[in-house]
Amino acid sequence: MKVKAFVFDAYGTLYDVQSISRVISAAFPGHGEYITQVWRLKQLEYSWLRSLMGRYEDFLTVSRESLAYTLGTLGLAAEEALIGRLVNAYDNLSPYPEAAEALAALKNYRRAILSNGSPGMLDALVRNTGLDSYLDAVISVDTNKVFKPDPRAYELVPARLNVRPEEVVFVSSNGFDVAGARSFGFKVARIERVTPAALRGELLSGENIGPAAIYRALRTQTETLGLPAHAVVDTLLELPGLVETFKH
Amino acid sequence: MKVKAFVFDAYGTLYDVQSISRVISAAFPGHGEYITQVWRLKQLEYSWLRSLMGRYEDFLTVSRESLAYTLGTLGLAAEEALIGRLVNAYDNLSPYPEAAEALAALKNYRRAILSNGSPGMLDALVRNTGLDSYLDAVISVDTNKVFKPDPRAYELVPARLNVRPEEVVFVSSNGFDVAGARSFGFKVARIERVTPAALRGELLSGENIGPAAIYRALRTQTETLGLPAHAVVDTLLELPGLVETFKH
Repeated sequence: MKVKAFVFDAYGTLYDVQSISRVISAAFPGHGEYITQVWRLKQLEYSWLRSLMGRYEDFLTVSRESLAYTLGTLGLAAEEALIGRLVNAYDNLSPYPEAAEALAALKNYRRAILSNGSPGMLDALVRNTGLDSYLDAVISVDTNKVFKPDPRAYELVPARLNVRPEEVVFVSSNGFDVAGARSFGFKVARIERVTPAALRGELLSGENIGPAAIYRALRTQTETLGLPAHAVVDTLLELPGLVETFKH
Repeated sequence: MKVKAFVFDAYGTLYDVQSISRVISAAFPGHGEYITQVWRLKQLEYSWLRSLMGRYEDFLTVSRESLAYTLGTLGLAAEEALIGRLVNAYDNLSPYPEAAEALAALKNYRRAILSNGSPGMLDALVRNTGLDSYLDAVISVDTNKVFKPDPRAYELVPARLNVRPEEVVFVSSNGFDVAGARSFGFKVARIERVTPAALRGELLSGENIGPAAIYRALRTQTETLGLPAHAVVDTLLELPGLVETFKH
């Protein structure tokens, strides 16, 4: 089956969610690592729980709620203005260094984002970082009011790009997203942002296992859900080379 | 509305899931805390992801898969026999000290468990710990092939006990379960196993924030999902006293 489109997860795949830690550390000196990691873990947890309960709210709301929870564990008040400012940092996440070049190299395919982010968050992000010029579509799960890995989130891609699922290479660093995309029927490429050896080295170093290590342990490795990626890449620049592989 | 039934979550509410750490520490000296916490976090994560993807497997399978993942992060092989032995430790979790007395005090109501656990896991657990003699029903989500907090899991309670949702007091320590039960329509009592002050003290002590603290931070506090418990108790022995409250 011919590959017609490359569709990217945003947070953790094209964009480094950890780049937000600078803003958090400035707002909460001494608590930056803890807040960054627990917030991100709760943010995804809340997206799943809301989807399961059939109580969708958009990712901006989920991000605010999960940040309020995180600050609450430290006894910090969740002031509206501060929460708003930290959540807005998602509009200026850093793209991974190779993101623009990788998207440019895929110009003969339809290129899109499918993200949990709300339409407003995603529009601001791709515009602020200049990636909008490489993308044919920025698709938010908000249209179907459910988060990944629910199949109704992935359904938006074939509908919007007018392709069949098996004509899409879906690219994500997030284990739950790899599993969900594979379950839905896409070709899936996993970008490995933390290798098993690097994680193992960190966990076995004898250093204390802190919030960032726990985050990496929970969210960066191949899930054991029986739905692996078809291919694993070290950098997004390897994606064009996968097309031949996926033909078969 | 008259209260007719008390329905309990099992893992973390009647039973201390942390009691499994002894077995894990014996099997993996030096890694007990890390494996215990990451396993439990991934176990629930996998239950949610499988539910969202519509790819239910029972909690025994989910427990095995999440343990294999956890061991994999340390570069440890997931030997079948060892995995089986550790998962079987769930058949012998310690009840919280007051669990039997609290159940006995509620003998004028229908008393049940609603748990993610597979029927085999739950049957062994209540029998091994003697709590079976206090329970009118042990209900596994397995019947509807979806995990909490999906409403189809909670639906099993009114059907099985022949009561209306608002006649049920649902008791859980787990934030996601409190939210799910409230969303479904039960009266909800949250048992607070870790107070906000205790957690805050731990996080702000200046000690390193390790896996157990991260677990407590992620999973023991009231969620900010807009679905709070109707009542919060410090011990299960307070439950009979709530009946008057819930009448109104």
